[in-house]
Amino acid sequence: ISEDRKPSPVAKSSEPNRNKSYDPKKPHITETPMTRYNFYKHVNWLNVFLIVGIPMIGLVTAWWTPLYWQTALWSVAYYFATGLGITAGYHRLWAHTSYSATLPLKMFLAFVGGGAVEGSIRWWARDHRAHHRYTDTDKDPYSVRKGLLYSHFGWMLMKQNPKRIGRTDISDLNDDPVVVWQHRHYLKVVFFCGLIFPTLVAGLGWGDYWGGFIYAGILRIFFVQQATFCVNSLAHWLGDQPFDDRNSPRDHIITALVTLGEGYHNFHHEFPSDYRNAIEWHQYDPTKWSIWIWKQLGLAYDLKQFRSNEIEKGRVQQQQKKLDQKRSKLDWGVPLEQLPVMEWDDYVDQAKNGRGLIAVAGVVHDVTDFIKDHPGGKAMIKSGLGKDATAIFNGGVYNHSNAAHNLLSTMRVGVIRGGCEVEIWKRAQRENKDVQYVKD
Amino acid sequence: ISEDRKPSPVAKSSEPNRNKSYDPKKPHITETPMTRYNFYKHVNWLNVFLIVGIPMIGLVTAWWTPLYWQTALWSVAYYFATGLGITAGYHRLWAHTSYSATLPLKMFLAFVGGGAVEGSIRWWARDHRAHHRYTDTDKDPYSVRKGLLYSHFGWMLMKQNPKRIGRTDISDLNDDPVVVWQHRHYLKVVFFCGLIFPTLVAGLGWGDYWGGFIYAGILRIFFVQQATFCVNSLAHWLGDQPFDDRNSPRDHIITALVTLGEGYHNFHHEFPSDYRNAIEWHQYDPTKWSIWIWKQLGLAYDLKQFRSNEIEKGRVQQQQKKLDQKRSKLDWGVPLEQLPVMEWDDYVDQAKNGRGLIAVAGVVHDVTDFIKDHPGGKAMIKSGLGKDATAIFNGGVYNHSNAAHNLLSTMRVGVIRGGCEVEIWKRAQRENKDVQYVKD
Ligand code: HEM
Ligand code: HEM
Ligand SMILES: [Fe+2]
Ligand SMILES: [Fe+2]
Ligand SMILES: [Fe+2]
Ligand SMILES: [Fe+2]
Repeated sequence: ISEDRKPSPVAKSSEPNRNKSYDPKKPHITETPMTRYNFYKHVNWLNVFLIVGIPMIGLVTAWWTPLYWQTALWSVAYYFATGLGITAGYHRLWAHTSYSATLPLKMFLAFVGGGAVEGSIRWWARDHRAHHRYTDTDKDPYSVRKGLLYSHFGWMLMKQNPKRIGRTDISDLNDDPVVVWQHRHYLKVVFFCGLIFPTLVAGLGWGDYWGGFIYAGILRIFFVQQATFCVNSLAHWLGDQPFDDRNSPRDHIITALVTLGEGYHNFHHEFPSDYRNAIEWHQYDPTKWSIWIWKQLGLAYDLKQFRSNEIEKGRVQQQQKKLDQKRSKLDWGVPLEQLPVMEWDDYVDQAKNGRGLIAVAGVVHDVTDFIKDHPGGKAMIKSGLGKDATAIFNGGVYNHSNAAHNLLSTMRVGVIRGGCEVEIWKRAQRENKDVQYVKD
Repeated sequence: ISEDRKPSPVAKSSEPNRNKSYDPKKPHITETPMTRYNFYKHVNWLNVFLIVGIPMIGLVTAWWTPLYWQTALWSVAYYFATGLGITAGYHRLWAHTSYSATLPLKMFLAFVGGGAVEGSIRWWARDHRAHHRYTDTDKDPYSVRKGLLYSHFGWMLMKQNPKRIGRTDISDLNDDPVVVWQHRHYLKVVFFCGLIFPTLVAGLGWGDYWGGFIYAGILRIFFVQQATFCVNSLAHWLGDQPFDDRNSPRDHIITALVTLGEGYHNFHHEFPSDYRNAIEWHQYDPTKWSIWIWKQLGLAYDLKQFRSNEIEKGRVQQQQKKLDQKRSKLDWGVPLEQLPVMEWDDYVDQAKNGRGLIAVAGVVHDVTDFIKDHPGGKAMIKSGLGKDATAIFNGGVYNHSNAAHNLLSTMRVGVIRGGCEVEIWKRAQRENKDVQYVKD
């Protein structure tokens, strides 16, 4: 086979450029800053026409085009089929190899995926792998850090420097004859699957060629495109981050509803080779359901799945991170090592002279202002002043709650040299000094 | 004043016994195990008649008693007033001194609280303080550990050994003339506020003496009692434990709805002297709202409140506890100290001989079975086999997610003597040995 017919194992830096006039050696237009005057040179006018222009014309034409119920049904059905071509085919099968498909299923997915008019499998999966590997960086082809609209379709409407996008290994795709065939015949595929086929079905089926063209063709393409583009925009912008919040991917039911189940995107970026996006039974993931049905029919196999142990570990770590953030915003009292050291006798003297001091676990607390608020009554708390109240506080009289311990730590004023009273007494005995064990 | 007129500062062990025949020196019936034959001796038949019997008679009589709308309205209004007497008066004011009240408010609360027929303030608050201090233990007068029904009203229907119940400081209550007066005249209070007053209102107001007696008296008492009893049963049985799960108190909206806002009971046991039970604006706590309004009217003052810093600390600690429990159930891989130590050359040799070994951060991992599943492709992961892949794995080629690190740790098979390759090389240099730095 000639060099032309054998794609390179790693995506070429000139891809996805089908523009014959592109010369990688000349400076690219994106290397020149955009101004009011060169603005038009930055716009990819062909894509603007394809993605925005044609649907506009379609919308206007629809005004005069009667909509038969058969055509309406067919448009919706083909919408779901071509949507699945992208989500179950382009995305989960080819970009992530999260399962294996038999040849018939592959051919079906390559066909309906082509009908969604979002580029060839090879081009799409290559960019998508770069998106995962370089998420949110400059090498991410649709980084949401450049704005929500940019990640939605701005990246297609403006010219891109092919050298900027990260490169990824696509040798497996180059070994897949369905992928190679679809890439080579992409223009034919897109015209046939995107427009001719839906027109023919409506025309030969119930005589509505024109309606089939406008509704099941042009407008259906528009809706499928906008819906799947949401995976790059909405799914990186709206929702929760239960597994990792270092990057932008997020989980949200709305995105899932719009994208045939691709809305659990925080999970997906963390576990990209899992054939599921939603892991709970009650979440909406029709793409997962379809793959599962294909498996029952013998069309799909080797469905990959991360162990729930791995998934739960991620969740626990993320919760830990959020908790640590919350914890660090709270006042936990002066750290012990920053407290002045007090002598036991000093403590007792000060307490006797009216300061509301209480020692618990070797730490002296000033509870003067709290005595009147003590939930256990004034008499109780006063009974501990000037004493080693460790045992009294910790169950001797009342086993205080967590809340009481927390509150106590905010009242710290010093640590007693040597720790608790009994420690001081023991040390004094060792050192043969004369201390009075009981002072009160 | 005579000894009889001056109540003791701490509740007597014979309280709440008004039974003249009780002799603390004789063995109490509860010290004899209950059998089929002495069963009737264990039952407090007076309380059974008061709490269950009278309401039954009331229900039956209601069948023949016409219900006027004025009486219905009055019963509901007096239901709320007497309920507040318990929640805002008996509970939050007297048992917990969570705010201070002026004399008129105290008199109002002692009146309507008496109308709920749940004992005198002194008796109620004494038991309630014991409930807080000895929650869930044998000294708790209504411990839920003895069963849901026991905590609801079983503790009143069966005879109790007065010595069993924990003792608490009630000197502040003994200093409160309203409390002392109400305790001394309790029988008069209960008849007047519970039955005579609601009957008179309906009778003098719209001539419905009999309806007032049955609906605003008997049946209203029954509903107020059952509702407030739920604080001891439902609130220790149904719901979440956001602040502490060592004891039984729980938060639940249903309990709150039934008990005029006393349903945030996990919070309440943790912060008993807070005048609020619900801390969020959207939670149902009409008792809190009433106290707040009384404050605006100048009737209540010194409303106590824990700082939100203290409250959030409790929440964070409880979340941490739950997270730690979750974490401990997951497999985090063999701990490093339990792994066998490998020589670097051994590692390289084994990897060369086909074992899928990869060293990251000084730990050797066996990824043989994972190579085909690697989300980044087979070629990528194979490129790290037999090498020090620390940098490759951590961003050199791809900055792996948390999930990848977690998964990797489950594949540990050994640690390399001396840590990473470069450490070994450095050490060898120091020891003047000849090692090849680059082996592949
Ligand atoms: C050392 C002498 C003390 C004694 C004998 C004592 C006794 C008690 C008792 C009996 C209660 C239960 C009251 C009830 O729930 O109705 C209580 C509650 C409480 N005490 Fe103390 N107390 C002492 C010191 C302190 C100190 C120094 C603090 C300062 C933080 C404190 C904070 C609390 C708090 C926040 C509660 C309510 C929450 C809970 O039930 O743990 N106490 N205390
Ligand atoms: C040292 C050589 C390795 C290289 C060069 C490498 C490369 C890559 C690349 C480029 C990706 C991104 C694929 C994508 O998101 O589309 C990836 C993902 C992943 N790799 Fe590796 N890998 C290596 C070793 C490993 C090992 C030993 C493990 C074992 C746990 C592993 C686990 C994963 C996982 C779980 C993902 C998907 C989650 C994520 O994006 O981090 N890799 N790897
Ligand atoms: Fe993404
Ligand atoms: Fe993806
Ligand atoms: Fe309670
Ligand atoms: Fe309470």
